[in-house]
Amino acid sequence: MSSIDLNCDMGESFGAYQLGQDEALMKHITSANIACGYHAGDPAVMRRTVRKCLDNGVAIGAHPGLPDLSGFGRRAMQVTAEEAYEMTVYQIGALWGFVRAEGSVLQHVKPHGALYNMASVDAALSEAIAEAVYRIDPELILFGLAGSELVKAGSRIGLRVAGEVFADRTYRADGTLTPRTEPHALLHDADAAADQVIGMVNGGNHQGSREFWMADTVCIHGDGPHALQFAVKIRKRLELAGIAVRALKI
Amino acid sequence: MSSIDLNCDMGESFGAYQLGQDEALMKHITSANIACGYHAGDPAVMRRTVRKCLDNGVAIGAHPGLPDLSGFGRRAMQVTAEEAYEMTVYQIGALWGFVRAEGSVLQHVKPHGALYNMASVDAALSEAIAEAVYRIDPELILFGLAGSELVKAGSRIGLRVAGEVFADRTYRADGTLTPRTEPHALLHDADAAADQVIGMVNGGNHQGSREFWMADTVCIHGDGPHALQFAVKIRKRLELAGIAVRALKI
Amino acid sequence: MSSIDLNCDMGESFGAYQLGQDEALMKHITSANIACGYHAGDPAVMRRTVRKCLDNGVAIGAHPGLPDLSGFGRRAMQVTAEEAYEMTVYQIGALWGFVRAEGSVLQHVKPHGALYNMASVDAALSEAIAEAVYRIDPELILFGLAGSELVKAGSRIGLRVAGEVFADRTYRADGTLTPRTEPHALLHDADAAADQVIGMVNGGNHQGSREFWMADTVCIHGDGPHALQFAVKIRKRLELAGIAVRALKI
Amino acid sequence: MSSIDLNCDMGESFGAYQLGQDEALMKHITSANIACGYHAGDPAVMRRTVRKCLDNGVAIGAHPGLPDLSGFGRRAMQVTAEEAYEMTVYQIGALWGFVRAEGSVLQHVKPHGALYNMASVDAALSEAIAEAVYRIDPELILFGLAGSELVKAGSRIGLRVAGEVFADRTYRADGTLTPRTEPHALLHDADAAADQVIGMVNGGNHQGSREFWMADTVCIHGDGPHALQFAVKIRKRLELAGIAVRALKI
Repeated sequence: MSSIDLNCDMGESFGAYQLGQDEALMKHITSANIACGYHAGDPAVMRRTVRKCLDNGVAIGAHPGLPDLSGFGRRAMQVTAEEAYEMTVYQIGALWGFVRAEGSVLQHVKPHGALYNMASVDAALSEAIAEAVYRIDPELILFGLAGSELVKAGSRIGLRVAGEVFADRTYRADGTLTPRTEPHALLHDADAAADQVIGMVNGGNHQGSREFWMADTVCIHGDGPHALQFAVKIRKRLELAGIAVRALKI
Repeated sequence: MSSIDLNCDMGESFGAYQLGQDEALMKHITSANIACGYHAGDPAVMRRTVRKCLDNGVAIGAHPGLPDLSGFGRRAMQVTAEEAYEMTVYQIGALWGFVRAEGSVLQHVKPHGALYNMASVDAALSEAIAEAVYRIDPELILFGLAGSELVKAGSRIGLRVAGEVFADRTYRADGTLTPRTEPHALLHDADAAADQVIGMVNGGNHQGSREFWMADTVCIHGDGPHALQFAVKIRKRLELAGIAVRALKI
Repeated sequence: MSSIDLNCDMGESFGAYQLGQDEALMKHITSANIACGYHAGDPAVMRRTVRKCLDNGVAIGAHPGLPDLSGFGRRAMQVTAEEAYEMTVYQIGALWGFVRAEGSVLQHVKPHGALYNMASVDAALSEAIAEAVYRIDPELILFGLAGSELVKAGSRIGLRVAGEVFADRTYRADGTLTPRTEPHALLHDADAAADQVIGMVNGGNHQGSREFWMADTVCIHGDGPHALQFAVKIRKRLELAGIAVRALKI
Repeated sequence: MSSIDLNCDMGESFGAYQLGQDEALMKHITSANIACGYHAGDPAVMRRTVRKCLDNGVAIGAHPGLPDLSGFGRRAMQVTAEEAYEMTVYQIGALWGFVRAEGSVLQHVKPHGALYNMASVDAALSEAIAEAVYRIDPELILFGLAGSELVKAGSRIGLRVAGEVFADRTYRADGTLTPRTEPHALLHDADAAADQVIGMVNGGNHQGSREFWMADTVCIHGDGPHALQFAVKIRKRLELAGIAVRALKI
């Protein structure tokens, strides 16, 4: 029986600022990427989010980002591979503190925003991130865009990797994401999104290419007015299709 | 044979800013308190400092502080016990990341500056900090002002604690520090400082009180023009007095 | 004809984080206290908020706070009078930049949160803040808790001051705020709040004391589900009572 | 009689961190670019540096940078033109506060580090920065790399601009800087540097091209062991060559 993981960014509130609908979404996902205080999140939010994950049986991952709170980690920055290594170690460690304090373990690491995008196409940056993850704990799973440099670097160093696909984005024939600047880049219909995910899990796209997809985990966006409804629908459709929805490490 | 630990704050540089003389002092101390990015330090500095400690056989401790880089963590802030718990977990975790990445372990935790001072006299704050340390790793040693609430809270929760004395500060008859506002609060002479430390290690002061002292570790200040000379002299005098100078956990 | 100013904290969003209901409240107040990037706000939010004020004919004030974004400036910090002076100059200047870039002028300065509370009872801190305001522009109006050290310091240095009262807080016989820890500290009914404000504007309380009140401006809270309704009701009641609702400087 | 301005970055200390040798260099330059708290500097440093400038008769400029204290503003960031406008307004305003509090005026604005480099080749970014400067005060002088997009954008909007050359960098035949990756990119000899500056002030280079140079102001680096000696030598040589060394606005 095939299976898939549903992941979502969580713990993005900060101080007096509330963001996202973690409480509600938590019931429909299997893995959470928790912000670590660089692009979002703070120690109180991290603690609370780790507890919520444990209460809901959701696997916990670190979501390290660029040191850019005012830009939410979405602005590319010219960081060196060394800096990427260092900020990744710092943030995984910080989240590990809360996970350990609650007697649990980390499942995975997924870079956030611009760091994720930069690493997708930059082998040196990806190697630095993969090395950070590996040196902290070689049992951690590295999440990256399916087919990206990040996933490749993770595999090379000996990490278990998870190729990520996006439920609400369309893909081109070669397996890459349709750029947002093109029409039909986004899927607004939950059923169409579910169809696509089911196809990916079941082993390929129209071209039969599997190399770029490796759909091990599906990213569910937590923002927007329809996020919750979207998540519920996709999960239900996956289960109806006989696909087990579960975290990668149990 | 009696023994003593010599600790010093390290890794207080930040970005382009250099502070302290870590390289030189590293050769004369046995434990380092490494800043964790809140009041000082950054991921690059933390990584470099952890490596230097390992190269020099110096035991590594986390030095969590208040989130106040511009005030160097020296300004008291009205944080709740929950906030103290959370910022302590975060910072220990972050440093743990680097220690783990280098294949080593943390020896201790010592709060910095205003957090240290606030905890010294505040049982609730101390309990929160001690709980943070304990929940991350009950084998960690908690450093606190000898006789303080912090040391007491650490003992209560089941942590090994280390009572800290200051080489360059004088003490009153009741074992408390002479306030800096009084004359003779500071010892400027390394020999006088060494005499005092030797007395403390050997079991008491003029009044025979040991309760407040528990000199398990001596704080060597890393700043000031004479810091290095002071450290060298004290260590030499201690060794001449037959006291083993070594980290607490080997 | 008597008159009163209605002020509200504005521009407290930050990066991806939205806070408050500035757009809606803007139509019912006469003065805005705009966060300056220390406890809340960022350059984009400041620019946008200044423009909204100008569009709505709302007078603009700087709302300097402590350098504590994660604590929203609500945690007391042990800052020196010099530091208070410096952070006040910095923040007023930063907001002035946006006001000037839009071709307008600043009306007032009102410290935020813990800085406001600390200054209320600390003459030295208040003098430092008043000096900062005065040296930047002696025409600025200093807002402070009615009867507080801040208002007194402002008067002493030669600034025009505005004594602030809170629409939703009750007062004791001596004119001071009922502490939040006591019952009946808060007014939940907009009519009762309006009655109190009208009484204050019309010249005194039950005891006839005016010294502590000097109700020149009324603080309307912008958070909470009923903030908007509250503001609308109070303004309407004031106008019905023949009190002109207008900014202090026109 | 021809004249030239000597500018230097100043006020780059932060909190407990000291950087640069402002006190000594201040006696040999005519314009200071003061950091505004984003990439370096803090309110206490800004106040102190403004005062030092006034004591030494040095003209004051704002030195806005990217919001990247840990990277010292030297890492390129993908900021929009709107963000560049906003961060420039914020930082000029903040420094203006201190200048105004001391009863003085700002002479100029010079972007720092990566913001300076990015603007040099990006017309849209340069226009946003020039607009920020112009809207705050059209009398301000905009400093930019001689011949750069920044200087062009400043001229277009109606600002007085100052083309900057570097005393310790060599130039190529087309007037652009020799990249640091090439040999002979740096001038280590103060006399050679002085020769080059004198040539630029006197109206051209070997090719006679003046378009790219417009040497209105010479950047003196404040870091490095020989910074002071370098500054002293250049100033002396310029004066011996009959060139008046003075700020642009007196």
